[in-house]
Amino acid sequence: MKDTDKNAYQPTRRTLLAGGTAAAVAGIALSGTTTEASATLPETWDEEYDVVVIGSGFAGLAAAHEAVKAGASVAVLEKMRVPGGNSIISGGVVVAPNSPLQAEAEIEDSVDSLYDDMMKAGLNLNHPELVRMVAERATETVQWTIDELGVQYAGLSHLGGHAVPRSYALAAGSGSGIVGPQLARLKEMGVEPRTRTLLKQIVRDTDSRVKGVVVHTGHAHPDLDSGTPVAIKARRAVVLATGGFGADPSFRALQDPRLGGDLDTTNQPGATSEALREALRIGGILIQPSWIQLGPWTSPDERGFGLAPHFVQGVTASYGLWVNTRTGKRFVNELADRKTRADAILATGNNAVAISNVAGMATERLDRMKDNGVLMEYATLDALAAAHDIPADALKATVEAFNAGVAAGTDAEFGRYLPGDIAPLDTPPFYAVRLSPKIHHTMGGSAINTDAQALDIVSNEPIPGLYMAGEVTGGVHGASRLGSCAYADCLVFGRIAGQNAAAEEVWG
Amino acid sequence: MKDTDKNAYQPTRRTLLAGGTAAAVAGIALSGTTTEASATLPETWDEEYDVVVIGSGFAGLAAAHEAVKAGASVAVLEKMRVPGGNSIISGGVVVAPNSPLQAEAEIEDSVDSLYDDMMKAGLNLNHPELVRMVAERATETVQWTIDELGVQYAGLSHLGGHAVPRSYALAAGSGSGIVGPQLARLKEMGVEPRTRTLLKQIVRDTDSRVKGVVVHTGHAHPDLDSGTPVAIKARRAVVLATGGFGADPSFRALQDPRLGGDLDTTNQPGATSEALREALRIGGILIQPSWIQLGPWTSPDERGFGLAPHFVQGVTASYGLWVNTRTGKRFVNELADRKTRADAILATGNNAVAISNVAGMATERLDRMKDNGVLMEYATLDALAAAHDIPADALKATVEAFNAGVAAGTDAEFGRYLPGDIAPLDTPPFYAVRLSPKIHHTMGGSAINTDAQALDIVSNEPIPGLYMAGEVTGGVHGASRLGSCAYADCLVFGRIAGQNAAAEEVWG
Repeated sequence: MKDTDKNAYQPTRRTLLAGGTAAAVAGIALSGTTTEASATLPETWDEEYDVVVIGSGFAGLAAAHEAVKAGASVAVLEKMRVPGGNSIISGGVVVAPNSPLQAEAEIEDSVDSLYDDMMKAGLNLNHPELVRMVAERATETVQWTIDELGVQYAGLSHLGGHAVPRSYALAAGSGSGIVGPQLARLKEMGVEPRTRTLLKQIVRDTDSRVKGVVVHTGHAHPDLDSGTPVAIKARRAVVLATGGFGADPSFRALQDPRLGGDLDTTNQPGATSEALREALRIGGILIQPSWIQLGPWTSPDERGFGLAPHFVQGVTASYGLWVNTRTGKRFVNELADRKTRADAILATGNNAVAISNVAGMATERLDRMKDNGVLMEYATLDALAAAHDIPADALKATVEAFNAGVAAGTDAEFGRYLPGDIAPLDTPPFYAVRLSPKIHHTMGGSAINTDAQALDIVSNEPIPGLYMAGEVTGGVHGASRLGSCAYADCLVFGRIAGQNAAAEEVWG
Repeated sequence: MKDTDKNAYQPTRRTLLAGGTAAAVAGIALSGTTTEASATLPETWDEEYDVVVIGSGFAGLAAAHEAVKAGASVAVLEKMRVPGGNSIISGGVVVAPNSPLQAEAEIEDSVDSLYDDMMKAGLNLNHPELVRMVAERATETVQWTIDELGVQYAGLSHLGGHAVPRSYALAAGSGSGIVGPQLARLKEMGVEPRTRTLLKQIVRDTDSRVKGVVVHTGHAHPDLDSGTPVAIKARRAVVLATGGFGADPSFRALQDPRLGGDLDTTNQPGATSEALREALRIGGILIQPSWIQLGPWTSPDERGFGLAPHFVQGVTASYGLWVNTRTGKRFVNELADRKTRADAILATGNNAVAISNVAGMATERLDRMKDNGVLMEYATLDALAAAHDIPADALKATVEAFNAGVAAGTDAEFGRYLPGDIAPLDTPPFYAVRLSPKIHHTMGGSAINTDAQALDIVSNEPIPGLYMAGEVTGGVHGASRLGSCAYADCLVFGRIAGQNAAAEEVWG
């Protein structure tokens, strides 16, 4: 390929298939290991920084923060129109074992206890040394968000799977309570994420080191060919913090064919796989990718997380029933763990409804859910059955059996815990929400070590010049992520990545 | 790198790190997608064939057979000293739904029934189109082994997880009953596997096509640097049939950290990951790699499959007990499925013994197991407890509780099925075998389509010139392989790969 080729680093597939064979025809001979997987140094670099961070969620922003503090020049590149990724819309609770708030509340806790809970939830598939790092540094990291960023917390939460209340609840009620202060502080430090900037290529040289990236500026998601190529040299290192692939049906289906295009996600639409795929192309190691967490409490009749969980989890899991519309029968303990319930709904072919005769929520929200077509109200079980193609006699038999259990104080069929104030489902109206699990978190990803260095598929050793943090990596959560632990994962390893990236020697 | 560089395709890491940076320094500019992941065409090819098959188990030999039949020149390359891989030592049963032997025995069966059983065992993680292909072609493939290879079968077996008896048992009692005839027939066709020939590099050109391989001849397993580099051009295609990574602690531990170096395997020692890693380096897609099947019936006191299963599965699972040596208590239903039991043993930290006071096997085998130190005999439970560091009182309480259950005809603790002829464990001698699960099959691997084409990590489309078959691929078995289905997987997709490889257009 000639020096004059301005598109030398333009990596669209069309370009390549049309004219990219010149090097092959020329018969260029190179020795062959992964260290030269992308012998693709651009003719010239358009820009250069010490550290190039890809992604602007918790992990990317934490990496940028630490790298700037260490004296590095830093670029933060974000493909979407706004920074923040999934982090900014996440639930707003951050794990912190043995914390000041626990001390105030006289709750005994320990790093070991969090470690044990994470390993248990992860079915011991977690990489122990990564879990240990997250568990050990989580509390100091929460303190760092307070001291360094001025993040405000409202109190402690006790999330499922944790031995004790140990999760700091953000006053803001969502991850924006951290992303906002991260962005503000970074701006003070002179760095603002460059949005609509898509990672197209990680440039890994024949000496094995990652030396920069090719991006498309002016990118319009999701058109991967949109925008203008720009080659950015990373004098010290690249930090990949591009999140999971929860919004990518194609990559999801490869790893779990049940989770293809029909299923919605609670993730933002940018949670796609192209950056992970690129990291694997240049030699990253994919680990544990088929462990994908679904929320069982969502409806196909609205996008994303939506309002359905208020009714499905908040009401029907304790006071109502989940019914297979094909059989009219219950199919799972409505209070089982997330994975059990999501798998059970999938096994019905998503032919399932959650029903109750208690609304259990403010009229305003109830009306909104009705208006949206998410929650339906019926005067009789026959009407409910007709509307959802449920065999009416089977449905009524199911409800009668359940009501008998309520009277007897026991759920004979699934052994579900019945609250003291539960009433039989015998008086209208009857409410129903259709069920369809949504993809929530992808536990697998590219392998890292405790220094947040990406590992190489051939050598198993670190890829020089490449760090990763957050949901794009695998191993911290094993088979199943415990609530509030992703915050610690992203912030702990984001900070480590930023510190180590800034400390790399300058090349060239 | 200069034309005169004789080691242009010598891919040892040492060479590269020492002198491999020339191309980088020269600043060669290439456009960058995975299609040029290994822009590493050798200066000259030392040899050339239409089709180059890597691996000499069921899949590789079936691919070679079909390719030769289609008129292609074929090389079969095998890294070990002998051909056959895991196939030759495998258990000797081949699935065949709706078969002539079933018809004779008046057993009703169908392709759909096998499909359903495979999907159920695989927890529906299986790629449905691959399962369908295996299920549809299994029986004609068994017929092919009879008609084309002269393979001899002894009858039908009913394996766990199959709705009906549908597995053809090889008269030879192991996979050698197929590998042997495959090798003999191939020899008649003019092809013999070249042993001690290690795949070092798959050569994928900038036009995206795989064009050959670099191997080391005279290789001495497991030294990956041993042997002499030889570049072999594949005019039509390369078929990768290199098996799973069951004998590779490093890759296993990445995907499931519980399964690192301490655990033994039933696999032959060549079942390592380097060929899979190379396929991923040049752009393959790794899918579902953390699903690794373990046999729960093995002992750490002998290598490989060994003799322990005769006692552990054959006797103690029905007539004895499995005890956690730390607690003296049972920890699992000894007749649960393989995965449940293997996970339960792992959860004890492999501190578990299988005990019984029935030997249940021929004296000769019993003596052999005693001589090998696998099976131990004790005059009292106290002696057994002392020898294995079990709290004696707890052990005796466990045995008493179990004996009471035997008297009552029910296992109150785990609900295990108790056979009619079970007797209480109250008379010596007491036998014990230590338990440690061993890695048996790796379900995950590189993604293929129903044409056995390898898929590309960036485009999700086929990698031109690269086919894969057998345990190196993923998707057929999902979360868990059903017994006798790997034979069909290897033979069906091996044949497809060979047919399609031979039908590729010649390049260059």
